[in-house]
Amino acid sequence: MAKKITPRSKDYSRWYTEVIQRAELADYAPVKGCMVVRPYGYALWENIKEGLDRRFKATGHVNAYFPLFIPMSFLQKEAEHVEGFSPELAVVTHGGGKELEEPLVVRPTSETIIGHMYAQWVQSYRDLPILINQWANVVRWEMRTRLFLRTTEFLWQEGHTVHATYEEAQEETLRMLNVYADFAENDAAIPVIKGRKSESEKFAGADMSYTIEAMMGDRRALQAGTSHNLGQNFAKAFDIKYLDQNNELQYCWTTSWGVSWRILGAVIMVHGDDQGLILPPKLAPYQVVIVPIWRGEEERSQVLEAAVQVQAALEGVRVKLDDRDEYSPGWKFNEWELRGVPLRIEIGPRDVAQEQVVLARRDVAGPEGKSAVAMSELAQRVPQLLDTIQADLLARARKFQRDNTYEPTTYEELKEAVGKGFALAYWCGDAQCEAKVKDETKATIRCIPLDQGGIGPGHCVVCGKEASERAVFARAY
Amino acid sequence: MAKKITPRSKDYSRWYTEVIQRAELADYAPVKGCMVVRPYGYALWENIKEGLDRRFKATGHVNAYFPLFIPMSFLQKEAEHVEGFSPELAVVTHGGGKELEEPLVVRPTSETIIGHMYAQWVQSYRDLPILINQWANVVRWEMRTRLFLRTTEFLWQEGHTVHATYEEAQEETLRMLNVYADFAENDAAIPVIKGRKSESEKFAGADMSYTIEAMMGDRRALQAGTSHNLGQNFAKAFDIKYLDQNNELQYCWTTSWGVSWRILGAVIMVHGDDQGLILPPKLAPYQVVIVPIWRGEEERSQVLEAAVQVQAALEGVRVKLDDRDEYSPGWKFNEWELRGVPLRIEIGPRDVAQEQVVLARRDVAGPEGKSAVAMSELAQRVPQLLDTIQADLLARARKFQRDNTYEPTTYEELKEAVGKGFALAYWCGDAQCEAKVKDETKATIRCIPLDQGGIGPGHCVVCGKEASERAVFARAY
Repeated sequence: MAKKITPRSKDYSRWYTEVIQRAELADYAPVKGCMVVRPYGYALWENIKEGLDRRFKATGHVNAYFPLFIPMSFLQKEAEHVEGFSPELAVVTHGGGKELEEPLVVRPTSETIIGHMYAQWVQSYRDLPILINQWANVVRWEMRTRLFLRTTEFLWQEGHTVHATYEEAQEETLRMLNVYADFAENDAAIPVIKGRKSESEKFAGADMSYTIEAMMGDRRALQAGTSHNLGQNFAKAFDIKYLDQNNELQYCWTTSWGVSWRILGAVIMVHGDDQGLILPPKLAPYQVVIVPIWRGEEERSQVLEAAVQVQAALEGVRVKLDDRDEYSPGWKFNEWELRGVPLRIEIGPRDVAQEQVVLARRDVAGPEGKSAVAMSELAQRVPQLLDTIQADLLARARKFQRDNTYEPTTYEELKEAVGKGFALAYWCGDAQCEAKVKDETKATIRCIPLDQGGIGPGHCVVCGKEASERAVFARAY
Repeated sequence: MAKKITPRSKDYSRWYTEVIQRAELADYAPVKGCMVVRPYGYALWENIKEGLDRRFKATGHVNAYFPLFIPMSFLQKEAEHVEGFSPELAVVTHGGGKELEEPLVVRPTSETIIGHMYAQWVQSYRDLPILINQWANVVRWEMRTRLFLRTTEFLWQEGHTVHATYEEAQEETLRMLNVYADFAENDAAIPVIKGRKSESEKFAGADMSYTIEAMMGDRRALQAGTSHNLGQNFAKAFDIKYLDQNNELQYCWTTSWGVSWRILGAVIMVHGDDQGLILPPKLAPYQVVIVPIWRGEEERSQVLEAAVQVQAALEGVRVKLDDRDEYSPGWKFNEWELRGVPLRIEIGPRDVAQEQVVLARRDVAGPEGKSAVAMSELAQRVPQLLDTIQADLLARARKFQRDNTYEPTTYEELKEAVGKGFALAYWCGDAQCEAKVKDETKATIRCIPLDQGGIGPGHCVVCGKEASERAVFARAY
């Protein structure tokens, strides 16, 4: 038996890395800050992509593909944008054996090159809105990297839309924030707080950034998706204009929104335990693993035959039959627990005789999570149980987030709160108060929640001045 | 009405570029040699991906993702490989504002970095085979570029597998060649010749390269997919070894195989006509477009209601209802012909009264391609007709290829043949004969067909010496 994973309580960061490598989700690459996503991790990413892409298409978006390389001069057209991204750029200076006249940046995000194309495609109000998404790799030179959460190259999607009015752009910005929240809660079983970013935390070049923030297993925050109202900043920088109904030339309004494979890191940290991954059924590459149990050749053929029948009965469910002879059932139990398969089906000779199997839930340890079910009922019971597991994972994560969210009213309470979870506290809106908290506690304002819970104004937890809203303060990834 | 596309007979290359831009498949990017794939082109690419990915998974392959950047030193480990790719490399020399110690190459293909990882993942025969595919962008610095066919950056898939024996690697190489041919013929309706490459045309680092070659509308050849038996070349360069059943260390055998968005260019050139694209139903983003025809508000609501019902009746078919008021039916006919939608459904007030519609095939011009069909029969007839169109496109392309393939027996005949199509002719295997043809006619050996038609040996069409096989000579993209 392989050695145990470091418990979360002992070293959370090490637990995270070990789970990823032992479950074969990903591996370090021989290039600084880059990683390799292994087949099991990529299958999980494919399910995440599918869940997001389906929602994008249902809200009227289409996919396209823009170039990896961006002329350096493009980035310089939007002042805040270039300032925000300059320190993180990877630059191609040579191509085809020659030095390039103008260096090319490997895209850190694509607002600039897409803006350049949109300026050519948009002529009149009839061309609007443009609702395009791109699945792509992007590169940001990172000093300190962590698998899935912060890597030099990462996979993501970036939506880029163009609208005739501010109102439509704002509506789109919030629509996609809601799409992200819907995916996070319903597919990834991750409860999120929807909110807007403070001025200091917003996207370089945006008028307003919105975010979904989630609480990880160590009570730190993770920004799991962002949606930006870019105002007319990029439209003016790239000259994206349209003729309106009165035949007058107007600047467009644009948005952008993105989710990366970082959300895969959130799935690991929100649900995992000391035995390894726990994957929500909707995203799990295998929703069910069948482990046959037998001794001797006679039992083997009998049990395997039943296992194959069970697999066939579970049409529409992603089932793995682990029929490897070279590993024991106990070894397989551990292996598939580590890899987070939501439901295990055990079949032994006695089960075959009784025409039943044993179901074992990954998310509920011990006898409580086990039940014997007649084979004839599996086709109905397994999908039901997967739905239950999906719902229970969300409920558990929601409870964990609630139990670890505090509502400090004094600065001392705030400092204590951000040491052990999220702090929901009044903030006057002053960047100095925000900076003070960050300097003294390492906690940042994750967002100002859109849902303020219907309570009225109060006093800033830092300076005591009047404050109309509460913000979420937390240490973050 | 927009101006006509340049006829193929007048300027094939211009026809190709105009169709792509006017049908909004793709556009030139502001970066030399790069292009933007627009939503309609990307939807086509998504269907191509889906058709290939399904076949990869059905043959036991899984997807993964490896880094974009490759240390320069990796490429140098396989001598032929680095020699083949050096002139085409894009090189990142700066990251995060600093010059890098070792320059990073933007992957032109991933044998090297994947080989490096495989060396770590493979320990024993139990770990074999490894059957991994990657969907990714790659970069090759090209001097002369052409939309989809040859671009500096392109999207593709690259399969990379590892095996215990030569025989298994060879079996895999041919399996994937057959998968490509199956996709080309059954989904893209493109007949292909399966064959092996000559020594001078094979992949840099391969022991043997196989290809599927197709004839374009201008009778030139296009290499639409390749599959390589890499022997032990990369295994030795990257130290990919396994312990066999006798506990002895052996070098592995590897393969790689790839298809890029270039096959989308083949779809355009094989099927398109002077009106624009003709898309095979299995790949078409819209298989059917409904064009309602009406005058005045009363007819409009009546006809649109029927059109919506027709759309609803065609469940499982990709249907576009073009209900735009600002364009005339005639304009829409031209538009969707240009964009290659396989089947058009016309509905006017008289059709509504008679509970019928008119179906018009994109691939059969004029009255012959039209038929009136009762609305009640559409759900059955439309899928049947789409199948017929799919089969007819393949048959037509097959006939075109056959009609333009010659079997020269003298060098003079060969020279004439490659000026007007494919030449299937005996070749002695000598590189000098191959080079002579290339120098004097611009035609290359596209492949030595796996299916030699059961005929015996003959005499080399160039030198007259004994030759055991025939090769396909053609001018190529």
